[in-house]
Amino acid sequence: MTMDQLLQQLPETAPVLQATFGLERESLRITDTSRVAQTPHPSLLGSRQFHPYIQTDYSEAQLELITPVAQTTAEARRFLGAITDVAGRSIERDEYLWPLSMPPHISEADIQIAALEDQTEYQYRVGLGKRYGKLLQSMSGIHYNVELGTDLTAQLFALSGYDNQIAFRNDLYLKLAQNFLRYRWFLIYLYGASPIAERGFLKDTLNSPVRSLRNSSLGYVNHEDIQVSFADLTTYVTDLEAYVASGQLSAEKEFYAPVRLRGSKHNRDYLTKGITYLEFRCFDLNPFDPLGISQEALDTVHLFILALLWLDQSTSVDKDIAVANDLNNRIALAHPLEPLPAEADYHSILRAMTEVVTHFQLDDYYHQLIQQAQEAINSPRLTLSGQLVSHLDGLSLQDFGQQQGQTYRAYFWSSPYALKGYESMELSTQLLLFDAIQKGLHVEILDENDQFLKLWHNDHVEYVKNGNMTSKDNYIVPLAMANKTVTKKILADAGFPVPAGQEFSSKSTARRYYGQIAEQAIVVKPKSTNFGLGISIFQDPASLDDYDKALDIAFAEDSDVLVETFIPGTEYRFFVLDGKCEAVLLRVAANVVGDGTHTIAQLIDLKNQNPLRGRDHRSPLELITLGDIERLTLQQQGYTPDTILPEGIKANLRGNSNISTGGDSIDVTEQMHESFKQLAADMATAIGAWVCGVDLIIPDLSKTASKEIPNCTCIELNFNPSMYMHTYCHEGPGQPLTAKILANLFPEIH
Amino acid sequence: MTMDQLLQQLPETAPVLQATFGLERESLRITDTSRVAQTPHPSLLGSRQFHPYIQTDYSEAQLELITPVAQTTAEARRFLGAITDVAGRSIERDEYLWPLSMPPHISEADIQIAALEDQTEYQYRVGLGKRYGKLLQSMSGIHYNVELGTDLTAQLFALSGYDNQIAFRNDLYLKLAQNFLRYRWFLIYLYGASPIAERGFLKDTLNSPVRSLRNSSLGYVNHEDIQVSFADLTTYVTDLEAYVASGQLSAEKEFYAPVRLRGSKHNRDYLTKGITYLEFRCFDLNPFDPLGISQEALDTVHLFILALLWLDQSTSVDKDIAVANDLNNRIALAHPLEPLPAEADYHSILRAMTEVVTHFQLDDYYHQLIQQAQEAINSPRLTLSGQLVSHLDGLSLQDFGQQQGQTYRAYFWSSPYALKGYESMELSTQLLLFDAIQKGLHVEILDENDQFLKLWHNDHVEYVKNGNMTSKDNYIVPLAMANKTVTKKILADAGFPVPAGQEFSSKSTARRYYGQIAEQAIVVKPKSTNFGLGISIFQDPASLDDYDKALDIAFAEDSDVLVETFIPGTEYRFFVLDGKCEAVLLRVAANVVGDGTHTIAQLIDLKNQNPLRGRDHRSPLELITLGDIERLTLQQQGYTPDTILPEGIKANLRGNSNISTGGDSIDVTEQMHESFKQLAADMATAIGAWVCGVDLIIPDLSKTASKEIPNCTCIELNFNPSMYMHTYCHEGPGQPLTAKILANLFPEIH
Repeated sequence: MTMDQLLQQLPETAPVLQATFGLERESLRITDTSRVAQTPHPSLLGSRQFHPYIQTDYSEAQLELITPVAQTTAEARRFLGAITDVAGRSIERDEYLWPLSMPPHISEADIQIAALEDQTEYQYRVGLGKRYGKLLQSMSGIHYNVELGTDLTAQLFALSGYDNQIAFRNDLYLKLAQNFLRYRWFLIYLYGASPIAERGFLKDTLNSPVRSLRNSSLGYVNHEDIQVSFADLTTYVTDLEAYVASGQLSAEKEFYAPVRLRGSKHNRDYLTKGITYLEFRCFDLNPFDPLGISQEALDTVHLFILALLWLDQSTSVDKDIAVANDLNNRIALAHPLEPLPAEADYHSILRAMTEVVTHFQLDDYYHQLIQQAQEAINSPRLTLSGQLVSHLDGLSLQDFGQQQGQTYRAYFWSSPYALKGYESMELSTQLLLFDAIQKGLHVEILDENDQFLKLWHNDHVEYVKNGNMTSKDNYIVPLAMANKTVTKKILADAGFPVPAGQEFSSKSTARRYYGQIAEQAIVVKPKSTNFGLGISIFQDPASLDDYDKALDIAFAEDSDVLVETFIPGTEYRFFVLDGKCEAVLLRVAANVVGDGTHTIAQLIDLKNQNPLRGRDHRSPLELITLGDIERLTLQQQGYTPDTILPEGIKANLRGNSNISTGGDSIDVTEQMHESFKQLAADMATAIGAWVCGVDLIIPDLSKTASKEIPNCTCIELNFNPSMYMHTYCHEGPGQPLTAKILANLFPEIH
Repeated sequence: MTMDQLLQQLPETAPVLQATFGLERESLRITDTSRVAQTPHPSLLGSRQFHPYIQTDYSEAQLELITPVAQTTAEARRFLGAITDVAGRSIERDEYLWPLSMPPHISEADIQIAALEDQTEYQYRVGLGKRYGKLLQSMSGIHYNVELGTDLTAQLFALSGYDNQIAFRNDLYLKLAQNFLRYRWFLIYLYGASPIAERGFLKDTLNSPVRSLRNSSLGYVNHEDIQVSFADLTTYVTDLEAYVASGQLSAEKEFYAPVRLRGSKHNRDYLTKGITYLEFRCFDLNPFDPLGISQEALDTVHLFILALLWLDQSTSVDKDIAVANDLNNRIALAHPLEPLPAEADYHSILRAMTEVVTHFQLDDYYHQLIQQAQEAINSPRLTLSGQLVSHLDGLSLQDFGQQQGQTYRAYFWSSPYALKGYESMELSTQLLLFDAIQKGLHVEILDENDQFLKLWHNDHVEYVKNGNMTSKDNYIVPLAMANKTVTKKILADAGFPVPAGQEFSSKSTARRYYGQIAEQAIVVKPKSTNFGLGISIFQDPASLDDYDKALDIAFAEDSDVLVETFIPGTEYRFFVLDGKCEAVLLRVAANVVGDGTHTIAQLIDLKNQNPLRGRDHRSPLELITLGDIERLTLQQQGYTPDTILPEGIKANLRGNSNISTGGDSIDVTEQMHESFKQLAADMATAIGAWVCGVDLIIPDLSKTASKEIPNCTCIELNFNPSMYMHTYCHEGPGQPLTAKILANLFPEIH
């Protein structure tokens, strides 16, 4: 039985791209003075004892970013982007993630071994430092993990003639590993990106740049005595165990092959349990990409891996690998602009890649990837190391590294309310995901459009939808809050202030109600209303005639109409969580304030330059538009868009204070008197809500509130209150609510 | 200060109709042999110790139905209808509620004093029996409680010049009580309905029928020595206390005035706390109405009460009342067809009623009520007692009473799945309301359109929406169940069988998936679908071309498309509550079975005669229609509506098995193997649901289920599973689920 030709026998419809992926990226924390950070691992990142995504590698300053298993390269890279974003914003503000595999100028003394609680791990690192020197440990790269899809593997197994699945898997993955070692120079040529070492890093300084120091014999490699056979799995395992037994390796994991078998802790277990997946470890950080690896590279590598399966096995494995290692070393140490040597048979690889794309009718995208690789082969300047040549300052990349690293830092901080890669999700969910990743919760997006998350720590699972719909609320409570009539009855029964009023389903009954409200300020409104349609407000008592008209207007919008006492005052949103008011927000209608120089239209443009303003609820504030409603609102104040507004004079652009129509959010949590916060919290408790947005109208802030003399009226309870608007405000410090949601859901990790 | 003219000074817009109402109706349980039931108070009605709505009055067989306070007469009467419905269906099937105030033929021995646990109450009844005789205690009537509205009272108070609200209320209600006593003959004339006593009831047999025995001196009245002054409240209280002190009355409540002051247990408390409302006690049961009192009577009385306020007070109260009592007695004892005597000044009342209607511009309805009263005055045959004359059998109404009582019983049983008066609510909510009233929970409908209920017992409050959305479920669970993708992931993670499959948002990715499903039976469907639109089922593996077309069809309906393994078998709905499967239902597509005689169209008509079939989900089964889809379905089987179907041959009218399109519901709870029920329950538990509808597809019922070898697949979990369809089935015994919901919510009363 042989693995050869197997892939070629699959039907064109076979799920050849089916695979799972995982990425690990190392990166040094570097200060703005281009020194390795001497600060401890950021406390914002929770505990390294369990953090699934952000760990430290060798040294305290070397972050290791680990994605969970993803179904596509794009999903893996997206999650890597999110972890990078979180890590980049969790370190000190004068630090950034070094974008290159080779560190900036560094000395042994700069490198603090990661202060892990696990003493075995710590001592292992001490040993490595002694064996290889700490400098080498400061190189960073990306590891690319791939498991072939279950359906794909099953179809290959069915064709293979094997009767044992484990034996089949082992042979399949071993063939892949062998061919990877035979052809990895192809990837080093394209993606090698460690052309220099800064002064003092190497014993013997290089005279000219190379492709990939890290993937050469000068890189972080085992002693040349270590020769492990890849010819068959049993030999491989036996070789490794012998080196550990002899003390030449301190552990099996100290064997630094460019490809590593994965799935079991001890290699011998593969013989009985099978190899689960492979880890490809040869990728230098791509400094032209904020994540260190591009989407195209991920997919080219995926196609390359399929090509390795498409190609036949070697019949003299270890000999071929030895030759390939030598070729690889020459290519890695060649000048970046030097073409591939003649003995590098890239034709076979490109042909195999093309055959895979053609046979399985893959998208044109994959043809383009092959085309790009071909072009880079034709023109070394297009390779990563080729591109880096122009950024060399003598034989240093320190300035370039700093410039790129700081640019990426600015990029990650540019929208602090967003999570990179997840910008299409609701803002509150992005904030919550950010916090969850930061604190080391496991996260899985069960349904992206539905904002449905699974979060877990050990055995403790919580599901969260829309940022704060959780297991902490009982089902009937949000349903009650969704119904204005029910909410009012419950609050009123519990003795809290709500607008007096009544609901009507017939106009004649509503009209008869006039006797009860003839002398009051009232609001007449449809029971369900959008953007204030059908609402009439009488700040002075209405005549029967006007009341009658207001009823007609409201009944035109809904079959049920509410007539309520009008409550004068200012509306505030109180965010209550678990019986405690955590934030208070004042929303102000869209407006501009004059400076005596600019027109109103210009003032709007200026105000819209605030990076917090955007469109479609994907920014904490919305851009102010200048549409019909705004023009009408201006006109009512005697203005036009061309009016030059005197200094300090405010022009309103809207009658409603919604953030969604350009309103301002003002965080008044600290200024609001405690008694109002307590009353709001008590209202949420009365209805039984864990999370609740309480809208209070307060006529006079100089008074205080109590249940007996409330000095305020509750006009609405909200069961899924927006959180982001409290966090990133037009004015005021902002309150971080999503972190409190998590602290409440997972008290054990806070 | 005087109460006179006060109402007349109110502006026309004043809320003159604002009031709250409560009704109490007594009724004997009578057997089909026209005897007073000797059975104990029905155990179905829970405990009399706390039942708020259904109690026993004097005797064990005399039900007392008590409405809660209602904002309108219609609402009070509607609730009375519901209580009557519940009571009528909670007694033995050979009993019914006696529709007349006067009992059928009865002897002292038939009357068992109510077996109340409260010994004071029991002994009080023993005393009454001795003092008045038990026979008199078997008369039944309706008490009508009214409190004037708070805004109305406030406006009257503001006009009155009083400075003390309690004094004002007492004078207001005392005036009302006085005028009521002066004019109650008006109501006895219209609504008196106790023309005879059956043989043996009275010592001296009447020679001809009268208007109202019950409201005459022959009725249940105090000894004529008891003369309590209504001239002022202090005298009233003092008089009453004196009679109790002397032993002439055993308690203040033994004073049987036609109007009773209400709000405090002891009359003296009115002096300091004020009268809250009045109870008018003179209403005979109207045997022409299943509830004993008509809507028109309730509103005429309301208007009459307002007229009593409109009219001036008497200046010689007790004298006027004595004269009025005498007049009343004569009118009550007059022949039903005799006109009012000349001294009965009905003109003043009718005029006052008209003035109220005119002054406050009340609807034409109230004019009509006055008109009806006027006509009844002109023509005694139109009064209740006048109408009863034609039903007299000699001087007996026993046959008529039986006929009416049995007709009403049949009416209440006609739609056992509905709650009378609440038929516009969802069926499951009607069933739950029925059960809640039956068991003696307090119920309040917070929002009728939203099916939102408040239920309580003592301090324990539960809110219920749509029959089973409660505090028992946590919020995220139904949200998870509402999302098919999330549900599948959670079930699959927990190791339960769900259809393999994947969700796609682009056609090209979905197309690429073909390789994974090329050899399977599959379903291609839009993620959200209604009535099967856009679904393609391939029971044999699809060609790529057909798969491609199916994707186009599905993507035309939704931007997300699911491709799932097709699961052959039969779908069953498992209803799980609190970890236990309580019901299993098989739904079968709308169909008819031939008899060799009728056409398919005729068979449909015959099947539709089942009283369980109706329209718009307001019956447990829907009427089968014969529309385009049904005709097409018939055509596919080679039939037309005119086909005469051979005996035993089934013709399907639909491809889908929804009950809403005429499908049959078959209760298979008892037949289903326990292992499937357990698996369904375990699935609900896995997702954390308290209430859950689990849809399982079972290919082979002869096998059993386990988590390891499920022999079934879960295709959906439902967070608000329908309950009524399990209870009233086309076939099978049906399972009472709403009662179990209540037992779970209120274990303390079960």
